[in-house]
Amino acid sequence: MIFQEEISLTPFPRGFHLITDLVTEVIQSSGIQTGTTQVFILHTSASLSINENTDPSVRLDFESHLNELVPENQAYYQHNYEGSDDMPAHIKASLLGTSVHFPVFSGRPRLGTWQGIYLGEHRNDGGVRKLVITVNGA
Amino acid sequence: MIFQEEISLTPFPRGFHLITDLVTEVIQSSGIQTGTTQVFILHTSASLSINENTDPSVRLDFESHLNELVPENQAYYQHNYEGSDDMPAHIKASLLGTSVHFPVFSGRPRLGTWQGIYLGEHRNDGGVRKLVITVNGA
Amino acid sequence: MIFQEEISLTPFPRGFHLITDLVTEVIQSSGIQTGTTQVFILHTSASLSINENTDPSVRLDFESHLNELVPENQAYYQHNYEGSDDMPAHIKASLLGTSVHFPVFSGRPRLGTWQGIYLGEHRNDGGVRKLVITVNGA
Repeated sequence: MIFQEEISLTPFPRGFHLITDLVTEVIQSSGIQTGTTQVFILHTSASLSINENTDPSVRLDFESHLNELVPENQAYYQHNYEGSDDMPAHIKASLLGTSVHFPVFSGRPRLGTWQGIYLGEHRNDGGVRKLVITVNGA
Repeated sequence: MIFQEEISLTPFPRGFHLITDLVTEVIQSSGIQTGTTQVFILHTSASLSINENTDPSVRLDFESHLNELVPENQAYYQHNYEGSDDMPAHIKASLLGTSVHFPVFSGRPRLGTWQGIYLGEHRNDGGVRKLVITVNGA
Repeated sequence: MIFQEEISLTPFPRGFHLITDLVTEVIQSSGIQTGTTQVFILHTSASLSINENTDPSVRLDFESHLNELVPENQAYYQHNYEGSDDMPAHIKASLLGTSVHFPVFSGRPRLGTWQGIYLGEHRNDGGVRKLVITVNGA
């Protein structure tokens, strides 16, 4: 069985944000008990990843370190007409990824105790972001 | 329903290249309307990722910045007998990824307006690269 | 058909380790001939990726370079009460990824000749790591 739904997120400020509960709701509405979920973001300057779900300072450190890894205003950037945060946002999105995937078990995401789903907003003003969630299983 | 096909790509020069159209053709030939696609590259020094599909300078900036993130000739590299571009190519491939995954809807890739599939060729002379495309759905 | 199994790994030292054989055994026990596999790690400071399976120096160079990309003791890290290796381990896990995905063909992983599955242990003493392996196909 395949279940697929598109959802729109309320705009997030630049940084990393937990969206586990939103995704869990969609999975539960599918009725699928065992299988896998694909969460896909329809954008090129925001990312999806899975990491620590409790201490908010982890998400701040992600933002700080990603800004070190992919600084703004590098002399070699040619794509800069959308602002200095744009090209770094594209690169961050590809380093972290455009989708996350995890098992479904007993009708819920089968994540580790400390795992949550991160939406990485890499633009200063990214606006509404859309996800397509596909659950595959029985 | 599962549809699986292996394809060989014409050799690409080092850098990032759009392969969305090639992948779309395979998906359309599967006849699957709703589901997911996995595109997997059978190599360790080329990558797959999803990013901006219009301005070619984005792909040039990816190449420039990945060369900053993973420089050649680091003193600590031990694996260097295949040339100075080899070990960085392995690391770039793992940072960006060996596969991309996205929804299928109405028999086509369900990508965002600005999203395309990038083949990252990280060797100077990578030769023919092979992909396995698996479409799962109904 | 969906097959899902959770396995526990013997603790690994910090660094990169091949786990292809362990994963292949699970896939073969599923009886599935054609489809896809998702391998998911239930932790936030260890990663899964796919890279070169023969020369052990590649895995050492991954460890060396990831330590350059994500150094310990950065002044801006706020999350440091679990030790200096902790926050870098979280970031490395997200850069490399929490899951790998590849085709299954003829009842086996369809990987390239030189590809193997890496468990990246990013903590000094990470202990037992658990994987959930889901095989989807026919």
